[in-house]
Amino acid sequence: METFWRYGYEGTSIQDLLENMGINRGSLYDTFGNKRSLFLAAIAHYDETVVKDAIARLEAPNASKQAIIDHFYRLIDLAVADRERRGCLLINTAVELCPHDPETATLIASDLQRIENAFYKALVRAKEKGELPEKHNLRALARFLTCSLQGLRVTAKVNPDREVLREIAQVVLSVLDCKD
Amino acid sequence: METFWRYGYEGTSIQDLLENMGINRGSLYDTFGNKRSLFLAAIAHYDETVVKDAIARLEAPNASKQAIIDHFYRLIDLAVADRERRGCLLINTAVELCPHDPETATLIASDLQRIENAFYKALVRAKEKGELPEKHNLRALARFLTCSLQGLRVTAKVNPDREVLREIAQVVLSVLDCKD
Repeated sequence: METFWRYGYEGTSIQDLLENMGINRGSLYDTFGNKRSLFLAAIAHYDETVVKDAIARLEAPNASKQAIIDHFYRLIDLAVADRERRGCLLINTAVELCPHDPETATLIASDLQRIENAFYKALVRAKEKGELPEKHNLRALARFLTCSLQGLRVTAKVNPDREVLREIAQVVLSVLDCKD
Repeated sequence: METFWRYGYEGTSIQDLLENMGINRGSLYDTFGNKRSLFLAAIAHYDETVVKDAIARLEAPNASKQAIIDHFYRLIDLAVADRERRGCLLINTAVELCPHDPETATLIASDLQRIENAFYKALVRAKEKGELPEKHNLRALARFLTCSLQGLRVTAKVNPDREVLREIAQVVLSVLDCKD
């Protein structure tokens, strides 16, 4: 997973994979079939670890507005600490492959939809608790938050400056409180 | 430029470039040196056409809040009309190469800074005209708008649905009017 995460699908050669996994060509083909199957397995592993963990926090019992805020600042801490600037495997793949690879596109769209749905659930709870102004369209807000995460991930790839990223997140999150 | 824009740096082979440019290997090496120099020339060409045009609209005399709004909806129209979902060459490159290619990272960071500065200028004019609430930190707002553009570009790669993208843009732009 690490090699694809860092260098992308096209930027990763079979030789890179063998070196990073410490196996030989025969074992790689026997176990995973080919580079593409291994890539899809890497995305599945990313889903089961990174994405699942993020969604669990947003869907935890009673998680509402603070869970959303925490999600953004936690992501910034992760992005700043990520010395190799790998970013998010889903977003890297969305940019690199989705336009000309329908199978991967469907996979990534469904992952982003899961994240949007987790935001939506947290927003519904926040509204029930009276933490949000009445005017909000929660689905639009969940889409906006998911889109903002993607923007922050790309921004962090170019300039992983904690203060700049936190300043942007503050503007993103100010939408939650806006009554106009 | 087209081939890199569509398939990325690693996803483009010399053979693809020769076919798309209709030239032979010798002419390519004589004119551009190598694949990397050709890629940097493609980014420079993108700057001189796509980026320059966008910035000129935001920096036009008297351009203020409406120019910012128009910029977002125009980008959505372009993204939806872009059947090959090429997205934005700067953002594609930011995601694919910036983390492990300092020369390209500097180039892309400076381009995104130019876009942020164009937003900033339009915001300053908007504030002077009384189109924005007093409370706004204009530099933070310009960074937020630049980040939101990146998020929309990635979202459009996965799901180029005009209504969804416009709904997100509406939330992004609602920040400009928020007085809280």
